[in-house]
Amino acid sequence: MKKTLPVMIAAAAMIPGGMVMAEDLQSYKDRFEPLPHLPPIPADNSMTPAKIELGNMLFFEPRISSSGVISCATCHNPALGWADRIPRATGHDGQVGERNTPTVLNSAFLGSQFWDGREPDLEGQALGPIEADVEMAMDLDVALERLTEFEIYREKFAEAFPDDDDPISGENLAYSMAAFERTLNTPNSPFDLYLSGDENAISQQAKDGMVAFVDNGCVACHRGPALTDSQFHAIQVPGSEDLGRYLVTGEESDKYRFKTPTLRNVAVTYPYMNNGATETLEEAVAIMGEEMLGREFEQETVDDITAFLHTLTGEMPEFEIPALP
Amino acid sequence: MKKTLPVMIAAAAMIPGGMVMAEDLQSYKDRFEPLPHLPPIPADNSMTPAKIELGNMLFFEPRISSSGVISCATCHNPALGWADRIPRATGHDGQVGERNTPTVLNSAFLGSQFWDGREPDLEGQALGPIEADVEMAMDLDVALERLTEFEIYREKFAEAFPDDDDPISGENLAYSMAAFERTLNTPNSPFDLYLSGDENAISQQAKDGMVAFVDNGCVACHRGPALTDSQFHAIQVPGSEDLGRYLVTGEESDKYRFKTPTLRNVAVTYPYMNNGATETLEEAVAIMGEEMLGREFEQETVDDITAFLHTLTGEMPEFEIPALP
Repeated sequence: MKKTLPVMIAAAAMIPGGMVMAEDLQSYKDRFEPLPHLPPIPADNSMTPAKIELGNMLFFEPRISSSGVISCATCHNPALGWADRIPRATGHDGQVGERNTPTVLNSAFLGSQFWDGREPDLEGQALGPIEADVEMAMDLDVALERLTEFEIYREKFAEAFPDDDDPISGENLAYSMAAFERTLNTPNSPFDLYLSGDENAISQQAKDGMVAFVDNGCVACHRGPALTDSQFHAIQVPGSEDLGRYLVTGEESDKYRFKTPTLRNVAVTYPYMNNGATETLEEAVAIMGEEMLGREFEQETVDDITAFLHTLTGEMPEFEIPALP
Repeated sequence: MKKTLPVMIAAAAMIPGGMVMAEDLQSYKDRFEPLPHLPPIPADNSMTPAKIELGNMLFFEPRISSSGVISCATCHNPALGWADRIPRATGHDGQVGERNTPTVLNSAFLGSQFWDGREPDLEGQALGPIEADVEMAMDLDVALERLTEFEIYREKFAEAFPDDDDPISGENLAYSMAAFERTLNTPNSPFDLYLSGDENAISQQAKDGMVAFVDNGCVACHRGPALTDSQFHAIQVPGSEDLGRYLVTGEESDKYRFKTPTLRNVAVTYPYMNNGATETLEEAVAIMGEEMLGREFEQETVDDITAFLHTLTGEMPEFEIPALP
């Protein structure tokens, strides 16, 4: 396949290296939004304690995989930034998928789910990995049958979905997991504190990085509370032949397009890119400069932007390791 | 293979069914020991906070497996009684082992480790699953190299083993994990409270079960604080051709011998037997009666003993889901 041309983004006027005065930084800060403590909540899936508790159980439940040992938390591991820190997801029978595992953290702030955006929301996302042959490789009906065998699940589904005659369903499995996932947010990162007025919450280098991030145009796509526009941009990173969004839409123009990933917690969700082939944040910044912005960053710029990205690691969410039946 | 004869155990005189008066129960209670809050600690591996913290990290660390997604906690899952609740352990590339995963809970009270007792202690046990082809399938040297790449592990190993010039070693990996595992105990089960004088901590049926457990001779092997003698007894449960202890010693007399498993938390560590082929506690009790005691229990006896076994589920230990590097 021929490599597509990088998307050129009109960058704001470049400012030569060096410190920006504090009073001038406000216009840069204005380009960002702190992470709200709660994401948007869909009208048809209110976040009730019963649903969240059930979703928390199901997220750690390996019996909804065909092997009985893989749960959502296997690849979305809370010890590893709710991702897996290996290049590409490894699932059923050790099969390796095509793409890097995105973190669940703040995923409720995204405009669509999966690298190719093939599901609009977390409710749509939840069942995919359960049924995918290379992930949990489970027939959904069998998963539901297994859950139905446990009295505690019969109770918890009934509590979470009190209006349903037959509450243990694929839809309710997805809805409860989505409700739980909407609790997995990381507010109060150093950058959020900085945006909220604590000038000392981040270093001068990180502030320089914020300036470089804006001036070089990174913020054009990495914007909004999760630092993503949730749009699809063409990119072919080293080693990837993945057709991306095209596999969903069949539109020629969608070839090699992937959803802009969130930069929240990016320092703890390595490796990078759709194929996970990029190990360090510094490399990722340099590659994005080349591929998306068509420019070779100075090392100082790479270091500054990397320092800025490190300030996006927030407070890890509370959750319980459930006592499963 | 011919089935070996069951080990016959001289049972105490049978008492006919029905209630035993409270004043007579003391002689039964005297056959048991409450679980101490701490297990024996070896002289050469003191439980320091630094070692425990490091061991906690390593227990949840999947990068010490060759796939990068299997940690000790995959099969010794804290959500599943620190075991896996599938018949036989499922590890690297979905391979299924020969034996049921024993719980880590209270394992420091056991006289040896593994079903066949091939390691004397937790220090000896820890490296086995990392290197086993059907479990984590990892070369130990590669595991240590991976750990050495992380600054936090270089720091934590140095803190845990301050006298070592080169603290990231297989021995120290095992020692720190063993120190962590010695914190995973479950005191204050209803039965422990009962032994400590709270007559209402367990039901009358459970008390009847305790009596039946003693009178039928179960207590001959299931004795001491963890309800195991840590000895090896010949048993061939349905579906098993496993030669057990013989594979360790090569002694003909050790064929089909397995270590008496702990009964602590047995209600939450199903399925049962060396091959995990027995799904319920009731079935397990009945099989043990037939295979080890040579008698067919009345259903009432099975139910009473099962009720007793349910009182052995203790307080689950505290631990942290570590933030791994």
